[in-house]
Amino acid sequence: MTLAVTFLGTSGAVPTGQRNTSSVFLRREGDCFLFDCGEGTQRQMMRFGTGFGIDHIFLSHTHGDHVLGLPGLLQTWDFNERDRAIAIHTPNGTRQLVRNLTSATGARPSYPVRVHEVGPGDTVLDAEEYEVRAFETDHRAKSVGYALIEDDRKGRFDRERAEELGVPVGPRFSTLHAGDAVELDDGTVVHPDEVVGDPRPGRTVAYTGDTRPIGATVEAAADADLLIHDATFLDDRRERAGETGHSTAVQAAEIANRANAKRLALTHVSSRYAGHEYDIEDEGQAFFDGEAFLPDDGDEIEVPYPDD
Amino acid sequence: MTLAVTFLGTSGAVPTGQRNTSSVFLRREGDCFLFDCGEGTQRQMMRFGTGFGIDHIFLSHTHGDHVLGLPGLLQTWDFNERDRAIAIHTPNGTRQLVRNLTSATGARPSYPVRVHEVGPGDTVLDAEEYEVRAFETDHRAKSVGYALIEDDRKGRFDRERAEELGVPVGPRFSTLHAGDAVELDDGTVVHPDEVVGDPRPGRTVAYTGDTRPIGATVEAAADADLLIHDATFLDDRRERAGETGHSTAVQAAEIANRANAKRLALTHVSSRYAGHEYDIEDEGQAFFDGEAFLPDDGDEIEVPYPDD
Repeated sequence: MTLAVTFLGTSGAVPTGQRNTSSVFLRREGDCFLFDCGEGTQRQMMRFGTGFGIDHIFLSHTHGDHVLGLPGLLQTWDFNERDRAIAIHTPNGTRQLVRNLTSATGARPSYPVRVHEVGPGDTVLDAEEYEVRAFETDHRAKSVGYALIEDDRKGRFDRERAEELGVPVGPRFSTLHAGDAVELDDGTVVHPDEVVGDPRPGRTVAYTGDTRPIGATVEAAADADLLIHDATFLDDRRERAGETGHSTAVQAAEIANRANAKRLALTHVSSRYAGHEYDIEDEGQAFFDGEAFLPDDGDEIEVPYPDD
Repeated sequence: MTLAVTFLGTSGAVPTGQRNTSSVFLRREGDCFLFDCGEGTQRQMMRFGTGFGIDHIFLSHTHGDHVLGLPGLLQTWDFNERDRAIAIHTPNGTRQLVRNLTSATGARPSYPVRVHEVGPGDTVLDAEEYEVRAFETDHRAKSVGYALIEDDRKGRFDRERAEELGVPVGPRFSTLHAGDAVELDDGTVVHPDEVVGDPRPGRTVAYTGDTRPIGATVEAAADADLLIHDATFLDDRRERAGETGHSTAVQAAEIANRANAKRLALTHVSSRYAGHEYDIEDEGQAFFDGEAFLPDDGDEIEVPYPDD
């Protein structure tokens, strides 16, 4: 199952020529999601070829640089004769603001626009093989982060062992792998635990949106394959980060270490670093035990299974 | 006096990878204006280096593709500690909608944001050497176009003739050119009309925004040096253009001919023509007596004095 992230906008509150305001596109096999939707997100989707097949948008909070791309995107879907509903998930207490924004120009899409409020701990989306959960963040606004957490996968099927036990190659292999016992022609019963290993953990991608470093992220991103964390400032502006509800690259690294995350994407970079923004990456990497990186707009990364 | 136009967004309602939604940046010497402000306009300004020194934004109407860049631009000015007021001019009956839009995310800029309603015939801005007038357009919305019309310039000063008449080189040249008589040392009086030619017309740039072809544009763009006209469709979609309140390239050319405009910029091109949008230019040029062109995003053109 493909799990991939395309960074559509990696700048902080103010865009630059190189970096648009916040948006992250996530695709898990056929399911596509948008996390935040800054101004210009629809053109970033066009430019980077993500397609427009999205049914859920998850908003971390409603500051302009995270939501101002919504009305244009909704309008473009309308022009393109979308008929499927779009669900917009937004922190508790911000539904009306989202409604005001999406109806600001008086446009009324001909497809349903559903706005759902969510709070920390909520399972926002419960799909067959994964869920999206909201978690607490700490910004100067009503805010949440989101984690996509896959269910455990079946254990590995030990084909060699199955053959040793006399299971004939064929449908009984699938039955065993699915967790059911099979009876052989001689009456012997083979149980799944004889040929199927322990369930293997699925993958986790966590997205904080804007936040100060906070313990809730450590929990939500536990063992995450990818943590996308606010890294607005270098650490010499730690005080400014605190005042404005953001994190430094070092603070993001510290959270990622505590969470035992494998990879850390540092994003929401202040436009003050335009031209030398990789200082953020260097600083984050210096303090992170895994792989830290500063994505550019348009960068797409795959999130592999940990044991593949 | 420099008069120059930068096309920031040349697409119709839906942007493409190449063309952003509507916005035109106009600079007359030190004065900079924005006509319409589609989503992403602030980044186009960054990308094309226009600077952010704008005190007036003129909106042709409030459809999303002409206004959704406003809140982000206002937010960026606020982050950059703007303190000068910004004036937003918008058609009669749309002030509240603009207010709703600019306050949609709850942000309150720390500089004054003034929203002025304007109607056809209004002098929207009366500057020392030019004015901006609103004119009637015909769209499916409350709408106006805008024309920047320079005052007449002084006639040419005939230096040779002045010397023949015995005016000494010096300040009396300026006095005469400014329209006042001078007395020579021998008591002779020289009158300005003896040495100064007829006033020369200033320049006119007219911007329609979205509109069907309409006589009011012919008047507003009379002898215009540049007419920027809706050309959403090719002429085989004339009916569709009428239904949606737009013009075809041929209709734009016909209006420009009737106005005796010198140059015609064809814009607001439907995204359906992406990849072969110069068909619009070809069609417009075939029917226009002057120079017709389809600007790309980022194109900057100078508007010279007609007699230079």
